[in-house]
Amino acid sequence: MNGYYGSQMVSLIEQLSRLPGIGAKTAGRLAFHIISMSKDRVEELAQAIVSAKDNIKYCKRCCTITDNEICPMCADKDRDQKIIMVVEDSRDMAAYEKTGEFRGIYHILQGVISPLAGVGPNEVRVKELLDRIKEEDIEEIILATNPNVEGETTAMYISKLVKPLGIKTTRIAHGVPVGGDLEYVDEVTLSRALQGRLEI
Amino acid sequence: MNGYYGSQMVSLIEQLSRLPGIGAKTAGRLAFHIISMSKDRVEELAQAIVSAKDNIKYCKRCCTITDNEICPMCADKDRDQKIIMVVEDSRDMAAYEKTGEFRGIYHILQGVISPLAGVGPNEVRVKELLDRIKEEDIEEIILATNPNVEGETTAMYISKLVKPLGIKTTRIAHGVPVGGDLEYVDEVTLSRALQGRLEI
Repeated sequence: MNGYYGSQMVSLIEQLSRLPGIGAKTAGRLAFHIISMSKDRVEELAQAIVSAKDNIKYCKRCCTITDNEICPMCADKDRDQKIIMVVEDSRDMAAYEKTGEFRGIYHILQGVISPLAGVGPNEVRVKELLDRIKEEDIEEIILATNPNVEGETTAMYISKLVKPLGIKTTRIAHGVPVGGDLEYVDEVTLSRALQGRLEI
Repeated sequence: MNGYYGSQMVSLIEQLSRLPGIGAKTAGRLAFHIISMSKDRVEELAQAIVSAKDNIKYCKRCCTITDNEICPMCADKDRDQKIIMVVEDSRDMAAYEKTGEFRGIYHILQGVISPLAGVGPNEVRVKELLDRIKEEDIEEIILATNPNVEGETTAMYISKLVKPLGIKTTRIAHGVPVGGDLEYVDEVTLSRALQGRLEI
Protein backbone atom coordinates (compact mmCIF):
# COMPACT_ATOMS: atom_id res chain seq x y z
CA MET A 1 0.00 0.00 0.00
CA ASN A 2 3.01 2.27 0.67
CA GLY A 3 3.63 2.66 -3.04
CA TYR A 4 0.13 3.93 -3.70
CA TYR A 5 -0.54 6.18 -0.72
CA GLY A 6 2.83 7.21 0.72
CA SER A 7 4.05 6.66 4.28
CA GLN A 8 2.00 9.44 5.95
CA MET A 9 -1.30 7.99 4.77
CA VAL A 10 -0.24 4.42 5.50
CA SER A 11 0.66 5.41 9.05
CA LEU A 12 -2.67 7.22 9.54
CA ILE A 13 -4.66 4.31 8.09
CA GLU A 14 -2.77 1.91 10.34
CA GLN A 15 -3.52 4.01 13.45
CA LEU A 16 -7.20 4.35 12.57
CA SER A 17 -7.67 0.66 11.83
CA ARG A 18 -6.54 -0.20 15.37
CA LEU A 19 -9.74 1.40 16.68
CA PRO A 20 -12.62 -0.99 17.47
CA GLY A 21 -14.99 -1.66 14.58
CA ILE A 22 -12.76 0.16 12.07
CA GLY A 23 -11.48 -2.16 9.33
CA ALA A 24 -8.90 -1.37 6.67
CA LYS A 25 -11.50 -0.05 4.19
CA THR A 26 -13.19 2.25 6.70
CA ALA A 27 -9.79 3.46 7.93
CA GLY A 28 -8.89 4.33 4.33
CA ARG A 29 -12.13 6.26 3.87
CA LEU A 30 -11.59 8.16 7.15
CA ALA A 31 -7.95 8.94 6.28
CA PHE A 32 -8.88 10.34 2.86
CA HIS A 33 -11.61 12.40 4.51
CA ILE A 34 -9.18 13.72 7.12
CA ILE A 35 -6.68 15.00 4.56
CA SER A 36 -9.55 16.68 2.69
CA MET A 37 -10.64 18.54 5.85
CA SER A 38 -9.43 22.08 6.59
CA LYS A 39 -6.26 22.37 8.67
CA ASP A 40 -8.27 23.93 11.54
CA ARG A 41 -10.76 21.08 11.64
CA VAL A 42 -7.96 18.50 11.58
CA GLU A 43 -6.25 20.20 14.50
CA GLU A 44 -9.54 20.42 16.41
CA LEU A 45 -10.00 16.68 15.99
CA ALA A 46 -6.45 15.82 17.10
CA GLN A 47 -6.78 18.24 20.02
CA ALA A 48 -10.10 16.71 21.15
CA ILE A 49 -8.47 13.27 21.17
CA VAL A 50 -5.45 14.31 23.24
CA SER A 51 -7.48 16.56 25.51
CA ALA A 52 -10.08 13.89 26.33
CA LYS A 53 -7.28 11.53 27.36
CA ASP A 54 -5.33 14.15 29.35
CA ASN A 55 -8.10 16.10 31.04
CA ILE A 56 -10.76 13.53 31.76
CA LYS A 57 -11.97 13.69 35.37
CA TYR A 58 -13.75 11.05 37.36
CA CYS A 59 -16.38 11.66 40.04
CA LYS A 60 -14.69 11.18 43.45
CA ARG A 61 -17.68 9.20 44.60
CA CYS A 62 -19.09 7.06 41.79
CA CYS A 63 -16.09 7.18 39.36
CA THR A 64 -18.13 8.31 36.36
CA ILE A 65 -16.64 10.75 33.84
CA THR A 66 -17.56 14.29 34.81
CA ASP A 67 -16.41 17.93 34.74
CA ASN A 68 -16.87 18.41 38.50
CA GLU A 69 -15.45 16.90 41.67
CA ILE A 70 -18.79 15.18 42.24
CA CYS A 71 -21.03 14.27 39.29
CA PRO A 72 -24.57 15.69 38.91
CA MET A 73 -26.12 12.30 39.78
CA CYS A 74 -24.22 11.94 43.08
CA ALA A 75 -24.87 15.61 43.93
CA ASP A 76 -28.64 15.25 43.40
CA LYS A 77 -30.17 15.15 46.89
CA ASP A 78 -33.53 14.05 45.48
CA ARG A 79 -32.06 10.69 44.52
CA ASP A 80 -32.06 7.74 46.90
CA GLN A 81 -28.49 7.78 48.21
CA LYS A 82 -28.83 4.32 49.77
CA ILE A 83 -29.18 2.30 46.59
CA ILE A 84 -26.13 1.90 44.32
CA MET A 85 -26.38 0.49 40.81
CA VAL A 86 -23.00 -0.90 39.72
CA VAL A 87 -22.36 -0.58 35.95
CA GLU A 88 -19.34 -1.11 33.70
CA ASP A 89 -19.08 2.34 32.16
CA SER A 90 -20.77 5.71 31.85
CA ARG A 91 -22.66 4.64 28.72
CA ASP A 92 -24.47 1.98 30.74
CA MET A 93 -25.36 4.62 33.32
CA ALA A 94 -26.65 6.88 30.53
CA ALA A 95 -28.73 3.97 29.18
CA TYR A 96 -30.39 3.47 32.58
CA GLU A 97 -30.85 7.21 33.05
CA LYS A 98 -32.80 7.31 29.78
CA THR A 99 -35.35 4.89 31.22
CA GLY A 100 -36.07 7.39 34.01
CA GLU A 101 -36.91 4.38 36.22
CA PHE A 102 -33.93 4.38 38.57
CA ARG A 103 -33.74 7.05 41.25
CA GLY A 104 -30.77 5.71 43.21
CA ILE A 105 -27.11 6.48 42.56
CA TYR A 106 -24.43 4.68 40.55
CA HIS A 107 -20.99 3.21 40.82
CA ILE A 108 -19.03 3.01 37.57
CA LEU A 109 -16.42 0.24 37.46
CA GLN A 110 -14.67 1.75 34.40
CA GLY A 111 -14.23 -1.70 32.98
CA VAL A 112 -15.01 -5.32 33.66
CA ILE A 113 -12.99 -8.19 35.08
CA SER A 114 -11.72 -10.19 32.12
CA PRO A 115 -8.94 -12.73 32.75
CA LEU A 116 -8.64 -13.32 28.98
CA ALA A 117 -7.93 -9.64 28.34
CA GLY A 118 -5.65 -9.49 31.39
CA VAL A 119 -7.99 -7.26 33.39
CA GLY A 120 -8.06 -8.27 37.04
CA PRO A 121 -10.17 -6.96 39.95
CA ASN A 122 -7.56 -4.29 40.70
CA GLU A 123 -7.91 -2.76 37.21
CA VAL A 124 -11.58 -1.94 37.77
CA ARG A 125 -12.99 0.29 40.52
CA VAL A 126 -14.07 -2.43 42.95
CA LYS A 127 -11.94 -1.12 45.83
CA GLU A 128 -13.62 2.29 45.45
CA LEU A 129 -17.01 0.55 45.73
CA LEU A 130 -16.01 -1.25 48.93
CA ASP A 131 -14.72 2.04 50.38
CA ARG A 132 -18.06 3.68 49.61
CA ILE A 133 -19.94 0.84 51.30
CA LYS A 134 -17.82 1.34 54.42
CA GLU A 135 -18.21 5.12 54.47
CA GLU A 136 -21.78 5.60 53.23
CA ASP A 137 -25.04 4.22 54.58
CA ILE A 138 -25.91 1.78 51.77
CA GLU A 139 -28.93 -0.54 51.80
CA GLU A 140 -28.76 -2.22 48.41
CA ILE A 141 -26.24 -2.90 45.66
CA ILE A 142 -27.76 -3.62 42.25
CA LEU A 143 -25.28 -5.38 39.97
CA ALA A 144 -25.98 -4.18 36.41
CA THR A 145 -22.89 -5.34 34.57
CA ASN A 146 -23.49 -6.64 31.02
CA PRO A 147 -25.16 -10.07 30.62
CA ASN A 148 -22.06 -11.74 29.15
CA VAL A 149 -19.24 -13.87 30.57
CA GLU A 150 -17.13 -10.93 31.81
CA GLY A 151 -20.15 -9.10 33.23
CA GLU A 152 -21.40 -12.20 35.07
CA THR A 153 -17.91 -12.91 36.43
CA THR A 154 -17.61 -9.35 37.69
CA ALA A 155 -21.08 -9.46 39.26
CA MET A 156 -20.25 -12.74 41.04
CA TYR A 157 -16.92 -11.38 42.24
CA ILE A 158 -18.48 -8.24 43.70
CA SER A 159 -21.42 -10.09 45.28
CA LYS A 160 -19.00 -12.36 47.14
CA LEU A 161 -17.31 -9.30 48.66
CA VAL A 162 -20.48 -7.32 49.41
CA LYS A 163 -22.93 -9.93 50.73
CA PRO A 164 -20.80 -10.82 53.81
CA LEU A 165 -21.08 -7.14 54.81
CA GLY A 166 -24.82 -7.73 55.30
CA ILE A 167 -25.91 -5.57 52.37
CA LYS A 168 -28.74 -6.64 50.08
CA THR A 169 -27.14 -7.55 46.74
CA THR A 170 -29.26 -7.96 43.61
CA ARG A 171 -28.63 -8.64 39.93
CA ILE A 172 -30.76 -7.16 37.12
CA ALA A 173 -33.13 -9.77 35.66
CA HIS A 174 -32.24 -11.88 32.67
CA GLY A 175 -35.14 -12.72 30.36
CA VAL A 176 -36.67 -12.22 26.98
CA PRO A 177 -36.25 -8.65 25.70
CA VAL A 178 -39.49 -6.69 25.31
CA GLY A 179 -40.57 -6.60 21.66
CA GLY A 180 -38.42 -9.64 20.91
CA ASP A 181 -39.50 -12.84 19.22
CA LEU A 182 -39.32 -16.03 21.33
CA GLU A 183 -38.10 -18.16 18.43
CA TYR A 184 -35.00 -15.99 17.99
CA VAL A 185 -34.05 -15.93 21.67
CA ASP A 186 -31.15 -18.21 22.67
CA GLU A 187 -31.69 -21.17 24.98
CA VAL A 188 -29.80 -19.79 27.96
CA THR A 189 -31.94 -16.64 27.95
CA LEU A 190 -35.11 -18.70 27.62
CA SER A 191 -34.17 -20.87 30.64
CA ARG A 192 -33.28 -17.78 32.68
CA ALA A 193 -36.63 -16.21 31.73
CA LEU A 194 -38.39 -19.34 32.96
CA GLN A 195 -36.43 -19.48 36.22
CA GLY A 196 -37.12 -15.82 36.85
CA ARG A 197 -40.87 -15.96 36.14
CA LEU A 198 -43.06 -13.71 38.27
CA GLU A 199 -46.68 -14.15 39.30
CA ILE A 200 -49.04 -11.81 37.41
CA MET B 1 -25.28 14.06 27.32
CA ASN B 2 -23.04 16.64 29.00
CA GLY B 3 -24.34 15.58 32.42
CA TYR B 4 -23.40 11.95 31.89
CA TYR B 5 -20.05 12.19 30.13
CA GLY B 6 -18.57 15.61 30.90
CA SER B 7 -17.53 18.25 28.38
CA GLN B 8 -14.24 16.61 27.25
CA MET B 9 -16.00 13.44 26.16
CA VAL B 10 -18.90 15.33 24.60
CA SER B 11 -16.47 17.39 22.56
CA LEU B 12 -14.54 14.29 21.44
CA ILE B 13 -17.75 12.44 20.52
CA GLU B 14 -18.95 15.48 18.59
CA GLN B 15 -15.67 15.70 16.62
CA LEU B 16 -15.67 11.98 15.82
CA SER B 17 -19.29 11.92 14.71
CA ARG B 18 -18.52 14.53 12.03
CA LEU B 19 -16.43 11.91 10.20
CA PRO B 20 -18.17 10.08 7.33
CA GLY B 21 -20.01 6.91 8.32
CA ILE B 22 -19.53 7.53 12.05
CA GLY B 23 -22.84 7.98 13.87
CA ALA B 24 -23.37 9.08 17.46
CA LYS B 25 -23.23 5.51 18.84
CA THR B 26 -20.03 4.60 17.00
CA ALA B 27 -18.47 7.93 18.01
CA GLY B 28 -19.31 7.12 21.65
CA ARG B 29 -17.73 3.69 21.37
CA LEU B 30 -14.58 5.15 19.76
CA ALA B 31 -14.34 7.91 22.38
CA PHE B 32 -14.57 5.45 25.27
CA HIS B 33 -11.97 3.30 23.56
CA ILE B 34 -9.66 6.29 23.11
CA ILE B 35 -9.70 7.25 26.79
CA SER B 36 -8.98 3.63 27.68
CA MET B 37 -5.88 3.61 25.44
CA SER B 38 -2.40 4.33 26.82
CA LYS B 39 -1.30 7.97 26.68
CA ASP B 40 1.42 7.05 24.16
CA ARG B 41 -1.04 5.38 21.81
CA VAL B 42 -3.42 8.34 22.03
CA GLU B 43 -0.62 10.75 21.15
CA GLU B 44 0.49 8.54 18.27
CA LEU B 45 -3.04 8.63 16.88
CA ALA B 46 -3.39 12.41 17.20
CA GLN B 47 0.08 12.86 15.72
CA ALA B 48 -0.71 10.64 12.71
CA ILE B 49 -3.81 12.75 12.02
CA VAL B 50 -2.02 16.10 12.13
CA SER B 51 1.05 14.78 10.34
CA ALA B 52 -0.94 13.28 7.44
CA LYS B 53 -2.64 16.63 6.90
CA ASP B 54 0.55 18.71 7.24
CA ASN B 55 3.09 16.55 5.45
CA ILE B 56 1.18 14.92 2.65
CA LYS B 57 2.95 15.28 -0.69
CA TYR B 58 1.53 14.93 -4.16
CA CYS B 59 3.34 13.56 -7.21
CA LYS B 60 4.38 16.53 -9.38
CA ARG B 61 3.20 14.68 -12.43
CA CYS B 62 0.05 12.65 -11.67
CA CYS B 63 -0.98 14.34 -8.37
CA THR B 64 -1.26 11.09 -6.41
CA ILE B 65 -0.24 10.98 -2.75
CA THR B 66 3.38 9.90 -2.47
CA ASP B 67 6.56 10.27 -0.44
CA ASN B 68 8.67 11.29 -3.43
CA GLU B 69 8.72 14.11 -5.96
CA ILE B 70 7.53 11.67 -8.60
CA CYS B 71 5.45 8.62 -7.60
CA PRO B 72 6.63 5.04 -8.29
CA MET B 73 4.04 4.60 -11.08
CA CYS B 74 5.13 7.72 -12.99
CA ALA B 75 8.81 6.82 -12.48
CA ASP B 76 8.34 3.29 -13.87
CA LYS B 77 9.85 3.34 -17.36
CA ASP B 78 8.30 -0.06 -18.15
CA ARG B 79 4.84 1.49 -18.12
CA ASP B 80 3.28 2.97 -21.24
CA GLN B 81 3.80 6.70 -20.68
CA LYS B 82 1.40 7.66 -23.49
CA ILE B 83 -1.83 6.41 -21.92
CA ILE B 84 -3.24 8.28 -18.94
CA MET B 85 -6.08 6.89 -16.82
CA VAL B 86 -7.89 9.71 -15.01
CA VAL B 87 -9.29 8.71 -11.59
CA GLU B 88 -10.86 10.61 -8.69
CA ASP B 89 -8.48 9.60 -5.92
CA SER B 90 -5.54 7.38 -5.05
CA ARG B 91 -7.85 4.63 -3.82
CA ASP B 92 -9.28 4.25 -7.33
CA MET B 93 -5.77 4.04 -8.70
CA ALA B 94 -4.93 1.35 -6.12
CA ALA B 95 -8.09 -0.55 -7.17
CA TYR B 96 -6.98 -0.56 -10.82
CA GLU B 97 -3.41 -1.45 -9.86
CA LYS B 98 -4.74 -4.55 -8.08
CA THR B 99 -6.19 -5.82 -11.36
CA GLY B 100 -2.69 -5.78 -12.88
CA GLU B 101 -4.39 -5.07 -16.24
CA PHE B 102 -3.42 -1.46 -16.76
CA ARG B 103 0.17 -0.70 -17.73
CA GLY B 104 -0.22 3.01 -18.54
CA ILE B 105 0.08 5.89 -16.07
CA TYR B 106 -2.47 7.79 -14.03
CA HIS B 107 -3.77 11.25 -13.31
CA ILE B 108 -5.45 11.72 -9.95
CA LEU B 109 -8.04 14.51 -9.83
CA GLN B 110 -8.09 14.56 -6.00
CA GLY B 111 -11.84 14.99 -6.09
CA VAL B 112 -14.77 15.20 -8.44
CA ILE B 113 -16.74 18.10 -9.88
CA SER B 114 -19.89 18.40 -7.76
CA PRO B 115 -21.94 21.60 -8.08
CA LEU B 116 -24.16 20.44 -5.17
CA ALA B 117 -21.16 20.16 -2.84
CA GLY B 118 -19.75 23.42 -4.21
CA VAL B 119 -16.78 21.75 -5.92
CA GLY B 120 -16.07 23.35 -9.30
CA PRO B 121 -13.53 22.40 -12.01
CA ASN B 122 -10.88 24.56 -10.37
CA GLU B 123 -11.05 22.59 -7.11
CA VAL B 124 -9.96 19.38 -8.84
CA ARG B 125 -6.71 18.82 -10.75
CA VAL B 126 -8.03 19.33 -14.27
CA LYS B 127 -5.64 22.16 -15.10
CA GLU B 128 -2.72 19.91 -14.15
CA LEU B 129 -4.05 17.27 -16.56
CA LEU B 130 -4.26 19.80 -19.42
CA ASP B 131 -0.71 20.95 -18.65
CA ARG B 132 0.50 17.35 -18.87
CA ILE B 133 -1.24 16.85 -22.20
CA LYS B 134 0.57 19.92 -23.53
CA GLU B 135 3.97 18.91 -22.22
CA GLU B 136 3.91 15.13 -22.60
CA ASP B 137 3.38 13.00 -25.67
CA ILE B 138 -0.04 11.53 -24.82
CA GLU B 139 -2.03 9.25 -27.14
CA GLU B 140 -5.07 8.31 -25.05
CA ILE B 141 -6.95 9.60 -22.01
CA ILE B 142 -9.08 6.96 -20.26
CA LEU B 143 -11.73 8.57 -18.05
CA ALA B 144 -12.23 6.27 -15.05
CA THR B 145 -14.18 8.51 -12.67
CA ASN B 146 -16.91 6.77 -10.66
CA PRO B 147 -20.10 5.71 -12.47
CA ASN B 148 -22.33 8.19 -10.62
CA VAL B 149 -23.68 11.69 -11.37
CA GLU B 150 -20.55 13.53 -10.21
CA GLY B 151 -18.21 11.08 -11.93
CA GLU B 152 -20.14 11.28 -15.22
CA THR B 153 -20.26 15.08 -15.07
CA THR B 154 -16.51 15.22 -14.48
CA ALA B 155 -15.82 12.77 -17.31
CA MET B 156 -18.00 14.82 -19.69
CA TYR B 157 -16.31 18.06 -18.64
CA ILE B 158 -12.81 16.69 -19.21
CA SER B 159 -13.68 15.02 -22.51
CA LYS B 160 -14.95 18.36 -23.86
CA LEU B 161 -11.57 19.93 -23.09
CA VAL B 162 -9.40 17.06 -24.26
CA LYS B 163 -11.07 15.85 -27.48
CA PRO B 164 -10.53 19.17 -29.34
CA LEU B 165 -6.80 18.67 -28.74
CA GLY B 166 -7.01 15.63 -31.03
CA ILE B 167 -6.36 13.08 -28.31
CA LYS B 168 -8.26 9.79 -28.17
CA THR B 169 -10.61 10.04 -25.18
CA THR B 170 -12.31 6.93 -23.79
CA ARG B 171 -14.57 6.14 -20.85
CA ILE B 172 -14.45 2.82 -18.95
CA ALA B 173 -17.36 0.56 -19.91
CA HIS B 174 -20.62 0.52 -17.99
CA GLY B 175 -22.30 -2.85 -17.81
CA VAL B 176 -23.33 -5.71 -15.59
CA PRO B 177 -20.72 -6.51 -12.93
CA VAL B 178 -19.06 -9.90 -13.26
CA GLY B 179 -20.56 -12.39 -10.81
CA GLY B 180 -23.69 -10.25 -10.49
CA ASP B 181 -27.26 -11.35 -10.95
CA LEU B 182 -29.17 -9.73 -13.84
CA GLU B 183 -32.40 -9.44 -11.87
CA TYR B 184 -30.73 -7.26 -9.24
CA VAL B 185 -29.06 -4.89 -11.72
CA ASP B 186 -30.75 -1.49 -12.15
CA GLU B 187 -32.34 -0.50 -15.46
CA VAL B 188 -29.82 2.17 -16.39
CA THR B 189 -26.96 -0.31 -16.05
CA LEU B 190 -28.88 -2.92 -18.06
CA SER B 191 -29.50 -0.47 -20.93
CA ARG B 192 -25.85 0.64 -20.88
CA ALA B 193 -24.77 -3.04 -20.99
CA LEU B 194 -26.98 -3.54 -24.04
CA GLN B 195 -25.68 -0.41 -25.81
CA GLY B 196 -22.11 -1.43 -25.10
CA ARG B 197 -22.45 -5.05 -26.29
CA LEU B 198 -19.45 -6.56 -28.03
CA GLU B 199 -19.28 -9.29 -30.65
CA ILE B 200 -17.97 -12.60 -29.25
